[in-house]
Amino acid sequence: MKPFDKVAIIGVGLIGGSIGLAAKRKGLAREVIGVCRHKESLQKARKKGALDKGTLDYKEAVRDADLVILAAPVRQIIKLAGEIAPYIKEGALVTDAGSTKSDIVSNLDKISRGKGFYFVGAHPLAGSEQRGVAKARADLFEGARCILTKTKATNPSALRRASAFWQEIGSRTTVLSPQEHDKVVALISHLPHLAAVELVKTARSVLNFSSSGFLDTTRIASSDAEIWTDIFFTNKKFVTQAIDNYIKQLKLTKDLIRKEDKSRLSTEFKKVKSLRDGLRK
Amino acid sequence: MKPFDKVAIIGVGLIGGSIGLAAKRKGLAREVIGVCRHKESLQKARKKGALDKGTLDYKEAVRDADLVILAAPVRQIIKLAGEIAPYIKEGALVTDAGSTKSDIVSNLDKISRGKGFYFVGAHPLAGSEQRGVAKARADLFEGARCILTKTKATNPSALRRASAFWQEIGSRTTVLSPQEHDKVVALISHLPHLAAVELVKTARSVLNFSSSGFLDTTRIASSDAEIWTDIFFTNKKFVTQAIDNYIKQLKLTKDLIRKEDKSRLSTEFKKVKSLRDGLRK
Repeated sequence: MKPFDKVAIIGVGLIGGSIGLAAKRKGLAREVIGVCRHKESLQKARKKGALDKGTLDYKEAVRDADLVILAAPVRQIIKLAGEIAPYIKEGALVTDAGSTKSDIVSNLDKISRGKGFYFVGAHPLAGSEQRGVAKARADLFEGARCILTKTKATNPSALRRASAFWQEIGSRTTVLSPQEHDKVVALISHLPHLAAVELVKTARSVLNFSSSGFLDTTRIASSDAEIWTDIFFTNKKFVTQAIDNYIKQLKLTKDLIRKEDKSRLSTEFKKVKSLRDGLRK
Repeated sequence: MKPFDKVAIIGVGLIGGSIGLAAKRKGLAREVIGVCRHKESLQKARKKGALDKGTLDYKEAVRDADLVILAAPVRQIIKLAGEIAPYIKEGALVTDAGSTKSDIVSNLDKISRGKGFYFVGAHPLAGSEQRGVAKARADLFEGARCILTKTKATNPSALRRASAFWQEIGSRTTVLSPQEHDKVVALISHLPHLAAVELVKTARSVLNFSSSGFLDTTRIASSDAEIWTDIFFTNKKFVTQAIDNYIKQLKLTKDLIRKEDKSRLSTEFKKVKSLRDGLRK
């Protein structure tokens, strides 16, 4: 794809920093400018080569940018979008990396319509329990899925350009509605996160006995608290549904254990094993 | 420690094979003989150097052995112990690697008393979702915890010898009663296993979206069905209690999400993150 003249990354953490590194490595931007609230993050990001320039001034970062990428926790994205919208160039492409999409997309669809820029929501299913630009990697998105959103307000050519950008930095893109996206991640990301957190709480008195199985199963419970409260609150409906379904499954299995129903329990375990074995490592 | 003249390993899979490899590497046995139902496992084990000799005949394996190690699924251990007991040498040390301890230890305490050998229950918290001697490794127990059991029937000198053996092959040993053991593993191993299984079931319709977080959290759901039904049925009381407590925690968190109680939810997440960060990697 033709490189963007100026890419502005709003939020220079693990995700924002990795986007900068990948975009520069792949030659997708003549200039990458990053903005965030912390001077040290900007310095680290420049040192790593994730940015050509860092600034604390959102206005300066966004001015004349052809591509603006919002890489912050969900509610910050919504708040920031409102603040920077007046300074975004007409015709610019705006995308994001927020973990839930319904709230972000409905807000940004509204804002962008009034201001003459194009918004395409995105969620790269990459990252980890770690945060901060120090952990950023040019290959973070390599082979990872990135879900892009499409609504009635989405401009088809903007969607193509946004898809091309996320693909160029390594992701496998899929297009869903914001609601479909939120339902999928409730099951594949938000519920597992809660499951891990509650395992740590439930086993709190015996954590000194943890083995490798427990460590793997609960790795994501080390994630950042602020990011995750945002995620759960902006995906309340699907997350609470997912918890209800999960509890239902747990109760069914508890019942099979109570009754020592070996044939049904082992059939269930075999089905699950074959589903899990089928997922790429 | 002084090497054993003859060590018999009953069940030559991931655990039995790894015990053989480790015992031979550390010079803990003049001869290691393995027994199981499958000729191919014995051949593989001999090829890997986990055994000096393999046999399908339990009687032959056990005869004159100074150390007998039962490395099979829980209910098979109980069944096999009854069958081989008449052939175990008087004064021999018998230990096991079963994943639950109350049933095994109460059975073996009874059997050993009548037959003049010494039993000390053990559970190495090692292994993985894989099984079979092909995956056996001499360093499987290196740094892993091994819980040994102590009851009124336990001979103190046998407990010391069993501890020394498990330590020599690399484990960090701890002594608990069988009931304490079963309560600990219900929380640190059995509940996480179920949590992973139910996550796969709940997210079954969207598994093609799994990211690295989901894969880690559900790795142990790939474990063997037969081994795990045994585990759950022989630890029913503590496992069902653990499930109940887990469901209680999930419901509390669901409520905080429903009410958007940011301060309490993020306090909880921070507490859990600090507990989880504190565990060795």
